[in-house]
Amino acid sequence: MTDAPHALAIAELKAILGARLMTGPSVLDLHSTDAAHHAPHRPDAVAFPQSTQEVSQILTICHRHAMPVTPFAIGSSLEGAAIPIEGGLSLDMMQMNRVLTINEADLDAVVQPGVTRKQLNEELRATGLMFTVDPGADASLGGMAATRASGTNTVRYGTMRENVLALEAVMADGTVIRTGTRARKSSAGYDLTKLLIGSEGTLAVITELTVRLFGRPEAMSAATCAFANIDDAVQTVIATIQSQLPVARIELLDATSIDGLNQHSKTDFPLLPHLFLEFHGSTSGAEETARAFGEIAAEFGATDFASATDEAARNRLWSARHDFYWAARALRPEAKAYLTDVCVPISRLAACIAETRGEIEQSGLLAPLVGHVGDGNFHLQIMMDPNEPAQANAARTLAQRLARRALSMGGTISGEHGIGLGKKALMSDEHGAALEVMRAIKQALDPKGILNPGKMLPAAGENGSLPRKSG
Amino acid sequence: MTDAPHALAIAELKAILGARLMTGPSVLDLHSTDAAHHAPHRPDAVAFPQSTQEVSQILTICHRHAMPVTPFAIGSSLEGAAIPIEGGLSLDMMQMNRVLTINEADLDAVVQPGVTRKQLNEELRATGLMFTVDPGADASLGGMAATRASGTNTVRYGTMRENVLALEAVMADGTVIRTGTRARKSSAGYDLTKLLIGSEGTLAVITELTVRLFGRPEAMSAATCAFANIDDAVQTVIATIQSQLPVARIELLDATSIDGLNQHSKTDFPLLPHLFLEFHGSTSGAEETARAFGEIAAEFGATDFASATDEAARNRLWSARHDFYWAARALRPEAKAYLTDVCVPISRLAACIAETRGEIEQSGLLAPLVGHVGDGNFHLQIMMDPNEPAQANAARTLAQRLARRALSMGGTISGEHGIGLGKKALMSDEHGAALEVMRAIKQALDPKGILNPGKMLPAAGENGSLPRKSG
Repeated sequence: MTDAPHALAIAELKAILGARLMTGPSVLDLHSTDAAHHAPHRPDAVAFPQSTQEVSQILTICHRHAMPVTPFAIGSSLEGAAIPIEGGLSLDMMQMNRVLTINEADLDAVVQPGVTRKQLNEELRATGLMFTVDPGADASLGGMAATRASGTNTVRYGTMRENVLALEAVMADGTVIRTGTRARKSSAGYDLTKLLIGSEGTLAVITELTVRLFGRPEAMSAATCAFANIDDAVQTVIATIQSQLPVARIELLDATSIDGLNQHSKTDFPLLPHLFLEFHGSTSGAEETARAFGEIAAEFGATDFASATDEAARNRLWSARHDFYWAARALRPEAKAYLTDVCVPISRLAACIAETRGEIEQSGLLAPLVGHVGDGNFHLQIMMDPNEPAQANAARTLAQRLARRALSMGGTISGEHGIGLGKKALMSDEHGAALEVMRAIKQALDPKGILNPGKMLPAAGENGSLPRKSG
Repeated sequence: MTDAPHALAIAELKAILGARLMTGPSVLDLHSTDAAHHAPHRPDAVAFPQSTQEVSQILTICHRHAMPVTPFAIGSSLEGAAIPIEGGLSLDMMQMNRVLTINEADLDAVVQPGVTRKQLNEELRATGLMFTVDPGADASLGGMAATRASGTNTVRYGTMRENVLALEAVMADGTVIRTGTRARKSSAGYDLTKLLIGSEGTLAVITELTVRLFGRPEAMSAATCAFANIDDAVQTVIATIQSQLPVARIELLDATSIDGLNQHSKTDFPLLPHLFLEFHGSTSGAEETARAFGEIAAEFGATDFASATDEAARNRLWSARHDFYWAARALRPEAKAYLTDVCVPISRLAACIAETRGEIEQSGLLAPLVGHVGDGNFHLQIMMDPNEPAQANAARTLAQRLARRALSMGGTISGEHGIGLGKKALMSDEHGAALEVMRAIKQALDPKGILNPGKMLPAAGENGSLPRKSG
């Protein structure tokens, strides 16, 4: 045992955690992968802390022994952020899953990081309040904060960046800090809350979050409509956003995605590009928004308008949308999914999607396109057989060219999935000299490099190695 | 000359900047102070760069010579952030004052840091777009970003934190970086944009900002109403925010403030606590909001309802509000103003204001109270004669007890004015162990400590020296 990697550290952890420190092969396997297509890698042990104090003790031990620590929760990351590629400890936060306080009067809640978004909304049911950030998966709030996650409601309610007011976190050496307050704004010092949000567990381990809530609007109605071609759908989105209609959701699904959706969710949408929408407000306000949207859409030839006002119908619609990942896989069950994620200024969305679709056709790959298009954010779910090198290569090229295209259009290589392993090589393309500033911060806060090593920040040699070619 | 402080560095700067590097006494005096009550301190020289490249050259020189650099623009900081207390260079950004691009289709603009908020809105006039953040002063956007400024519109449109999408900045050693993109969201790396916003020039010098714009709403209407006592006014605010009415502005002025306003702006409001409001939206939406607000206010006994729908009347109202600083000074022309600034969760606003007013009465000081109360943010403008030690002491005690009260209620020591010199001693009270994380970041990004030294972060010995006593 003492010859195994990190045996001394593991023995110390065991002394504190007892049965909540595990090294059996099945638990190691469960913590070796996330929802991405990246190769799995086992940790040496998995810890299941139940308190901030335990997380602090764990990090103190790991820091002393320079043992890598990779936070883990639901495992729904799409870029490999939760894979412990350098071994060490997988820190499973799912036993810290209590909603600690709901402050109805201030529209906020204090939760532990293992609380999932559906769990929180379940606990909020009696209050008339809701937590709005919804990446498709029922992710943990800690993971969502670490990834700066967003989702379908972001166009109206913001991402995790706007919806986390304060954090408690444990630094690499075990120090517990608090960032932010329950006040809605502050000019007191560096914004450490925003620094930790999106840091993918590389700077600290989040142990508590104070999140914003919104009152459930008086009226919520959903709508769908179809377009003869995708450009008309995108132009409708651009006009909607530019006119600042307060849509709560505005989602694009191309015809291929609709095909998968129909097969998977037993729906019968016409095989055309669609927008799925939701309107929130007072009864008259939501109606006014829906009517104004209808006028814009009609100008771009929208057809097959359908609406869903009762909760069951709306839930069916959004469940279908959230099941898109599985729906797309149903189109080619033998393939694996390579998910992309870019975000561009809204004025460039049509051009970005048109050029991307041209490349998809050339590539011969099946790659349904969906997007939180109100934010300028869209994804391809490239279906490929990873054992077919030509296909895997073509998928990678398509994804990388899409990321570069987004950059050339003033956008970003990741709208919401994060960097993890999958996009490290693109970081210098997006950030240039600012990447060194990020490295300096990482070095200052985690000098031993134990927190989620190998993620987000490319090593010096990993930089800009991809061929540059304008999209 | 070579014996003067920083003579070598100044000679090098002179070689680059020529007449735009000044050392005359009047220009040094102009850059020795800001709008705060702190003692002035002259820089050794003032530089007026005209490009990012010049800022980079300047910082390269100052870095080599370890010469302090304190950014300066309008000089409207209220906490001494722009006072070069360690001498060195005052970096006056006001010659970098061009609006570089207005992207109407994306609702954003790219500006240099010396552009003021009124200048930007003037240049936007033809577009139907507006920039919303409005601290009373016509501050520079660079200064506003550095201070994480907000103002009357924040309850609807957010602070500088939400309204800056991307930055260009020069690091301590002269390296130019870009943070963020024009995309509305991103999960690509550490959020350096948000780290620099609110950093008060201690981490980098901002040389370009990409800011969000909003379309001018179809309808804008203002309203005022009076209350028998301040608690009824605050309860109206709390109920309005909790019901999530989309008010664009909701400002509290106590009776003393109204007195000053009437004297200074020749208005004739009854000498009672008032709320000043603005409603934005479609014509029907703004009307619906105004009506709903009226119903809430009536429940708390509001009287003297007045509304202003045409632009001239609205402008008169908000000019009066923005002139509050001068209005309050008119109440006691011989005194100086000691401005406080706290922000608390909305549910605690009434208690915080009530306790504070109790202390004002005990103190015998004249201290009108105004606030961006929709955010939970309010100010006292304590009038005092700095040459009267007892008065100055009482003012300081009142301000410090207010800051501690805000903390004890889950709030922050600064809602929008920043830390600068004035609140350094309170930083450890708010941040505890997180202050060390801030120091580590400062040390990593500015190891020579040349950027705005002596501001925001207390030196190790300056910590927690104030007597603790719960408010």
